[in-house]
Amino acid sequence: MFPVHDSILLPQGFRAAGLHCGLKKTADQYDLGLLLADQPVPAAAIYTQNQLCGAHIHVCRDHLTRSNGMVRAVLVNARNANCATGQQGIEDARNCCRQLAERLRCPTEQVLMCSTGPIGAPLPVEKIVTHLDALLAKATPTGAMDFARAIMTTDTFPKGVHGTGEGVAVTGFAKGAGMIHPDMATMLGFLLTDGKPAGNVPALLRTVADRSFHRVTIDGDTSPNDTLILLASGKGGGAAAATERVLTDTAQQLARRIAADGEGATRLLTVQVRGARSEAEATLVGRTIATSPLVKTAVAGRDPNWGRILSAAGRCGVQFDAARAQVWVGKADVYSGGKPHPENEPVAHRHLLDDRETILGVDLAVGGASADVWSCDLTKDYVQINADYRT
Amino acid sequence: MFPVHDSILLPQGFRAAGLHCGLKKTADQYDLGLLLADQPVPAAAIYTQNQLCGAHIHVCRDHLTRSNGMVRAVLVNARNANCATGQQGIEDARNCCRQLAERLRCPTEQVLMCSTGPIGAPLPVEKIVTHLDALLAKATPTGAMDFARAIMTTDTFPKGVHGTGEGVAVTGFAKGAGMIHPDMATMLGFLLTDGKPAGNVPALLRTVADRSFHRVTIDGDTSPNDTLILLASGKGGGAAAATERVLTDTAQQLARRIAADGEGATRLLTVQVRGARSEAEATLVGRTIATSPLVKTAVAGRDPNWGRILSAAGRCGVQFDAARAQVWVGKADVYSGGKPHPENEPVAHRHLLDDRETILGVDLAVGGASADVWSCDLTKDYVQINADYRT
Repeated sequence: MFPVHDSILLPQGFRAAGLHCGLKKTADQYDLGLLLADQPVPAAAIYTQNQLCGAHIHVCRDHLTRSNGMVRAVLVNARNANCATGQQGIEDARNCCRQLAERLRCPTEQVLMCSTGPIGAPLPVEKIVTHLDALLAKATPTGAMDFARAIMTTDTFPKGVHGTGEGVAVTGFAKGAGMIHPDMATMLGFLLTDGKPAGNVPALLRTVADRSFHRVTIDGDTSPNDTLILLASGKGGGAAAATERVLTDTAQQLARRIAADGEGATRLLTVQVRGARSEAEATLVGRTIATSPLVKTAVAGRDPNWGRILSAAGRCGVQFDAARAQVWVGKADVYSGGKPHPENEPVAHRHLLDDRETILGVDLAVGGASADVWSCDLTKDYVQINADYRT
Repeated sequence: MFPVHDSILLPQGFRAAGLHCGLKKTADQYDLGLLLADQPVPAAAIYTQNQLCGAHIHVCRDHLTRSNGMVRAVLVNARNANCATGQQGIEDARNCCRQLAERLRCPTEQVLMCSTGPIGAPLPVEKIVTHLDALLAKATPTGAMDFARAIMTTDTFPKGVHGTGEGVAVTGFAKGAGMIHPDMATMLGFLLTDGKPAGNVPALLRTVADRSFHRVTIDGDTSPNDTLILLASGKGGGAAAATERVLTDTAQQLARRIAADGEGATRLLTVQVRGARSEAEATLVGRTIATSPLVKTAVAGRDPNWGRILSAAGRCGVQFDAARAQVWVGKADVYSGGKPHPENEPVAHRHLLDDRETILGVDLAVGGASADVWSCDLTKDYVQINADYRT
C-alpha cells in the first residue's frame, strides 16, 4: 500500500550505505548500515523509557553529552540487540564506534551506534569491524535504501521516506514491526535534514516525535532498544518553521508505514479522535483504542464493532458522556445520539473489507482538540510470529 | 485443570437458582440466575471504571444507596449486556428488579441486577419477567451450580467455589473469559458469606478484590459491565479476620479460574513478583508482565523468553537495576547476575510444555514486597474468538 522506491534522495551533505556482514543468514540480507555526515552536525536522540536498556543507549547518551550533540556518523546493526549483555556489551558498542571514528579521523564520541534484534547474545564485534572499510567505501548520496534494508528485522518492507518543501529536505528511516508503542514508538528511527531548528535540536526532535512516532502502537510492548535520532545540519536554505513541518510530515509517513507493517497486520488502522478537551487527552483516547486487543481483533474480523471502540475510549480515564459521543467506521456513523445505527453497518463492513487503511473514529463532544493514532489489526499471524520467534 | 462439581454448598441463609429464559439459543443453556438471601443482608459492590457503564450499574448504585446497603436478592442475565441502551435500558433493569421485589414482598431497592453479554441491544424484559416465578420456585440451598451456569457467556466451564474455615463459610461465583483486566478484573463476580466484616462491607470487599479479582488480566480490556457483589450476612460464628481470609482465598480461587479460562487460553499463567519496594509496585510489575502480548505469545509458543519478561517489567515505570534482577520460568533460573543462563532453558521449556499452570517470576532485588498476578497465554484461538464474535 506504500510505494517502495529502489532509491530515494538524501539531503545535501549526507551519505548512506548498507551491506551484509554476516549477522543475518543469507548474503542478500543487509544487516549493517551507516549514515554519514560530511562534517559533524547538530544531533539529538530519544530513547526507550524501558528500565532495561540496550547497550547502545548507554553509549549514545554518553557520546552525545561528550560531543556537545555533534555527530559525524551513525552505525546500525540488525539481528543482535546487544541488550542484557552487561558491561561487556557497552564496551563492545563503544569499540565499534571507536573503530569507525578512527577510519573517519573524528573523535569517538561523534559516532553513534544502534542495535536491533534478539536480546541476550553477545554482539559479534569482529563481523562488524571487519566490514567497516567496505561500508565506508559504499557510502554514497544514493545509498539511502541500502541503509533502510540493513536495519530491517521482521519488517516486510524497507521504510525510507524523502520529503521536501519550502527549501527544506528531509530523509527519514525506520524499522518497526512488533514491540512498538509510545514512548518510544519505533524500535529504530533516523531523520536527516538540511533544515534549521527554531530552538535546539533535542526540542525539535521531541516536538516531531510527539506527533508521529509517539502515536504508533502495535502491541503495547516497548523494546529496550527503541531509539530515534535526528541529524539536522542546518546547511540548507529552509526556515525553522518549514523544517519542523517537513520533518513532522516525513516522520508521520514513517509512523504510518510502521503501523501498516505491524507483525501479522493486514490493515493500517488510523484512529481519529475528535472533540477532546486537549490534544493530550485525544492522544490518550486514541492510543487506548489503538492498543485494545478487542478493537484490533474486530478489525481483523472486519467487524464494525462500535461497542468495543466506545468501551476502549471509556476505560482510559478521560471523562466524557457516552450518550453524547459519536463513533464512525470509515464514512459510516455507527453510533450517535446515544444509540447504535445498525442500518449503517453494511457501509462500515464494506470499508473494512475493501480498504487497506481502516478508519475508526470517535467524537467525545467535550472540546475542540483532536489527534490521529496509527496501529494495525491483531491477527492469528501476529500470534504465530511471536510464539515461534526463537524456535 | 480445576474440578467442576455438580453441586457446591451455599452459606446458611442463602439460596440460588438458574434456568433458561430464552436469551441463549438452546433450552439446556441457562441464561437467568438468582441469588437469594432469606432476609435482607449487608452488601457492597465494586463496578467497572469504564466511562461507558452498563444500565445495571446505574441501578445497583442507586439501589444500594437507597437500601443503606441491604440486599435481599441479585438477579443476573447473560447474553445481553443492557449497555449503551440509554435511559430505556436503566428503566428496563429497574423494572426487572421491581417485578422480583413484588414477588419477594420487599422494597425494590433491596434487589440488584447484573447483565452480561453483547453491547447495544435492548434488554428482553418480557422473557426475563415471565420466568421470575419459575426462578423463585427453583431457588434452593443446592442451586449454586445452576446459578454458576446461568451467568456464563464465552466461559468454557462454570466457576463456583465453596470455602470454609474457622467457622466461616463462603461461596463465590464468577464469569470471565475475555475483556478482563483490573479494575475490574472480572466481568461478573459474586461472593456470599455468613461471616462478619471487621469494618463495613464495602471496605472488606475492596480489600478482598485488591488481592484477587484485581490481579487477573486476560487482554487488558475492561468491560462496561464489570461488577463484583458481596453479600455478608454475619449470621455465622466466624470472626472478622477469618471472614477476610476465607473470602480472599475463595476469591483468589475464582480469579485463577477466570485466568485459566481466558478466551483461547491453553495455560493458566501465574506471574510471581518478588523483591519489590511495595505490594503496589509488585502488582504493577506483575500486571505489566501478565498483560504483555509478547510474554503471552511466548507462553503460547512454550518459549522460555526471559528477555520479554524482563523487558515488560522494565517498561511499567518501577525503578530497578536489570543487572541485579532475577527471572525464573517454573523452577529454572533463566536470568540472574546480569546474564542469561541458556543451560537452564531445557528445564524451563519442559515446564512450559508439560504443566497446565505456567509460572513466570521476577525478583527486582529492591525490597521485600511481593505479589502474584494471574493471566493466560495469547493464542490464535483468542484472535479467532474475538474476530468472529458477532459474525
